[in-house]
Amino acid sequence: MEEIKFQELFDLLENNHFAKMKAILSEMNEVDVAEFLQELETEKLLLIYRILPKDLAADVFPYLETENQQAIVEGYTDKELRVLIDDLFLDDTVDFLEEVPANVVRRVLANTDAETRSTINRFLQYPDNSAGSIMTNEMVELHDNLTVNQAIENIRKTGVDKETIYTCYCIDPSRHLIGILPLKSLILADGNTCVRDIMDDVDQVISVKTHTDQEEVAALAKKYDLLTIPVVDNENRLVGIITIDDIVDIIEEENTEDFEKMALVHPSESEYLKTGVFKLAKNRILWLLILMISGTFTGQLIDKFQGMLSLVVGLTASIPMLMDTGGNSGGQTATLIIRGLALGDITVKDYFKVLWKEIRVAAICGSILAVVNLGRLFIFGHADAKVYLVTCGAMFCAVVFAKTIGCTLPILAKLCKLDPALMAGPMITTIVDAVTLMIYFGLASVFLLHN
Amino acid sequence: MEEIKFQELFDLLENNHFAKMKAILSEMNEVDVAEFLQELETEKLLLIYRILPKDLAADVFPYLETENQQAIVEGYTDKELRVLIDDLFLDDTVDFLEEVPANVVRRVLANTDAETRSTINRFLQYPDNSAGSIMTNEMVELHDNLTVNQAIENIRKTGVDKETIYTCYCIDPSRHLIGILPLKSLILADGNTCVRDIMDDVDQVISVKTHTDQEEVAALAKKYDLLTIPVVDNENRLVGIITIDDIVDIIEEENTEDFEKMALVHPSESEYLKTGVFKLAKNRILWLLILMISGTFTGQLIDKFQGMLSLVVGLTASIPMLMDTGGNSGGQTATLIIRGLALGDITVKDYFKVLWKEIRVAAICGSILAVVNLGRLFIFGHADAKVYLVTCGAMFCAVVFAKTIGCTLPILAKLCKLDPALMAGPMITTIVDAVTLMIYFGLASVFLLHN
Repeated sequence: MEEIKFQELFDLLENNHFAKMKAILSEMNEVDVAEFLQELETEKLLLIYRILPKDLAADVFPYLETENQQAIVEGYTDKELRVLIDDLFLDDTVDFLEEVPANVVRRVLANTDAETRSTINRFLQYPDNSAGSIMTNEMVELHDNLTVNQAIENIRKTGVDKETIYTCYCIDPSRHLIGILPLKSLILADGNTCVRDIMDDVDQVISVKTHTDQEEVAALAKKYDLLTIPVVDNENRLVGIITIDDIVDIIEEENTEDFEKMALVHPSESEYLKTGVFKLAKNRILWLLILMISGTFTGQLIDKFQGMLSLVVGLTASIPMLMDTGGNSGGQTATLIIRGLALGDITVKDYFKVLWKEIRVAAICGSILAVVNLGRLFIFGHADAKVYLVTCGAMFCAVVFAKTIGCTLPILAKLCKLDPALMAGPMITTIVDAVTLMIYFGLASVFLLHN
Repeated sequence: MEEIKFQELFDLLENNHFAKMKAILSEMNEVDVAEFLQELETEKLLLIYRILPKDLAADVFPYLETENQQAIVEGYTDKELRVLIDDLFLDDTVDFLEEVPANVVRRVLANTDAETRSTINRFLQYPDNSAGSIMTNEMVELHDNLTVNQAIENIRKTGVDKETIYTCYCIDPSRHLIGILPLKSLILADGNTCVRDIMDDVDQVISVKTHTDQEEVAALAKKYDLLTIPVVDNENRLVGIITIDDIVDIIEEENTEDFEKMALVHPSESEYLKTGVFKLAKNRILWLLILMISGTFTGQLIDKFQGMLSLVVGLTASIPMLMDTGGNSGGQTATLIIRGLALGDITVKDYFKVLWKEIRVAAICGSILAVVNLGRLFIFGHADAKVYLVTCGAMFCAVVFAKTIGCTLPILAKLCKLDPALMAGPMITTIVDAVTLMIYFGLASVFLLHN
């Protein structure tokens, strides 16, 4: 459907039918308008953006890429800029300013009133990924001595500029958060009830500090099914709120970070297609180097046992399979444990429960793999039966060791306040490879050489 | 803080101070109450659950584990059960019924009125992971000829039983969805305006069908920053809504599924600690077997070149390092591409852009790795310089091949409507291993054997 609409818009643009375009765009969802605009060259984008109704323009702005936002701001007169900034929500303005060069920031700030400027400056100073850096200050604040009718009247007057009106925040004269009031309670209550009597008291309210990590904010929102979370300073004064749309973005950001770390890619905040080649290479090379160097240890092991390997037929051929199976077994376990830790399903306290579980799972998987492998070797192989038994014994040990290390390292990392996500497949593989070979060569030395 | 509160509650329970417990629990958040209850043995849990105020009990219920929910239902009289089911939201009841044995389902259904029973039965029939299976039918429905004041009056009367009142749905007499109306618009509008004039028309409304996959529902909610999504049947009649708290759960579920698939673990819907050992082993063994068998191909390669390996000193020792580095390089790329595809940042159309990017990244990473490795070999090695050059050449080729295959396979999978997540590290490693060895042995045969 969108495709068809986009095609129609392209045709209109081709023929300079701007009035018709404006009519269609005005009826579209702001997200789709942004998507359409991004398909245009910058010049055309600026042209079309200007014909959008003022409100829609402000709604579309946050959904544009930073470079397009910057182009718009740079093309705007000071007067147009003032109107735009005034219509944007504060968190979207701050998000934008965090990404653009200093001269653009200065120009935007020069076109805001003194109060907004000081708020933006304060918000810009909160550390990256902290609650302060993602919050907005456009929330409904109510004093607790109002009646329900007065509160609703208050919302009607001020609500249009608020990012959400569905949760109202009750504050005392010094702006301390003393309770929250979902709009639902307000609407359903009798008009003459006092706000104080129906609000949720502050000790029941989930709130975060400005410096709370965004990951923790997302975890609380998920746990308590919240639409918004209030942000308070150290004296419990309300300074902002974080809304669910931003929390959903954080959840996806944190997941992406975990995916990247688990593949030993240095996490990057920019989208793949927008990241330069050198940046992409830089994000990957460090871990590749570290793992390559540590991989040489495995090579030295093979070197050391070269004599035995050339002596016993059929020993070398199983090395890749043993290493792969060990790595894969460990990677499976590590992934499940890392994910369990991230979701809070598993805690450090559960270690022994997890270990015992993994050892049993490893025993089952290891036995099946060893038996299947034994069958395969007997059917297709052409070496001594003893070699096969050693291979399968090593296979079983490798799986048990891999799954043990695969559940231990992530939990150990968590215990040491390191990120468990680093202890995933590639890291586990490197360790398991070396140990698997040691087991293999050890078993081979004992059972194959002395006969 | 919770820990302290929990300790206090445990002490009170120990001393049978139920009145005091009830007072404390009544002031707590339902999620925390559920967390506390789960720490108790079933018998104690039932005891304490019964002393909760009726409303809180219904709020707590959805946050309990299925086995505890079942214990409560089994311990309840028919009368108590009727009250509980009546207070639960329909989607929570359906979630519960999807998990419990048929006799529990029958008993619950026997204690609901005919209309609810028929609705529940219909909802239970929607396929797993479809929009129909996660929706609720407790939404605010408005006719479009009401005035704003009438609509608010309507919400005040019926809102208490609705899962959300923040988005209202405008329907015609045959229940066709004709528009939606955020409560914010309703509150901010003049009381005598007609609902029809301020609602968002249906062609601007994002909705899904009952059979839409939940992954798609979550993607829409993320893209358009929605708090709820209406679900309609094939004739565009409103049948339910999906709320953001369920969407957040879906997002995490889908991410977990991707993590599992990428580690080649068969996705499971139950939490790790609650999954039995045999089930865990079953979820992992298939892929381990497949990869083990395909790993034998690599072994056969080594077997075939055994002669050369024993002839040329220093050749075997680099095999693990080459295989690891190839696997890791490919895994990094595959992870970034799979994630980009999942988030919609990358589409199949971007393939050649991605490929060209990855080839350049591979050239940079491959060169650095080869040079570092060369340096290491010259300093610590004791073989012929030609062997080192062949090793480093193979290293470079392996990285380029790995990154090529790492970006190609996930996009190819997407193109073939397969799940790209399967084409992650472990799968890539198996393919890259074999090819890396072929390159290595090929180069070695050409440059080392004929001298």
